[in-house]
Amino acid sequence: VPVQSSYTVTGMTCGHCVSAVTAELSRLPGVSDVQVDLAGGVVVVTSAAELSGDDVRAAVDEAGYALIP
Amino acid sequence: VPVQSSYTVTGMTCGHCVSAVTAELSRLPGVSDVQVDLAGGVVVVTSAAELSGDDVRAAVDEAGYALIP
Repeated sequence: VPVQSSYTVTGMTCGHCVSAVTAELSRLPGVSDVQVDLAGGVVVVTSAAELSGDDVRAAVDEAGYALIP
Repeated sequence: VPVQSSYTVTGMTCGHCVSAVTAELSRLPGVSDVQVDLAGGVVVVTSAAELSGDDVRAAVDEAGYALIP
């Protein structure tokens, strides 16, 4: 059963930012879907198994944004 | 002698936006340099000859932003 996890990401201001975060998170093993609400800074990731928080944080950081907290 | 023209562009919010506008304007014939001040929304284009305002407007529009006025 896929797992959905929700994260808050700061610094996204436009569709390009959404694309960058989506692309980086999509690269994590087992991730099947990434949905970003730009206005709220909420990112919902669907994955085959629970993701490591460190991996998610690293991916968001790689995209140029920050995971909260 | 190269010509420098300054434009005001709205809607740019981040470095990705700057890159998109820079890329589109750089494609115009004769353009040798594009400098964007994100905070001020000011774009300075250096070109071999004076650019058509319509071409500049179309390039900015293609990038997803708007030239003012």
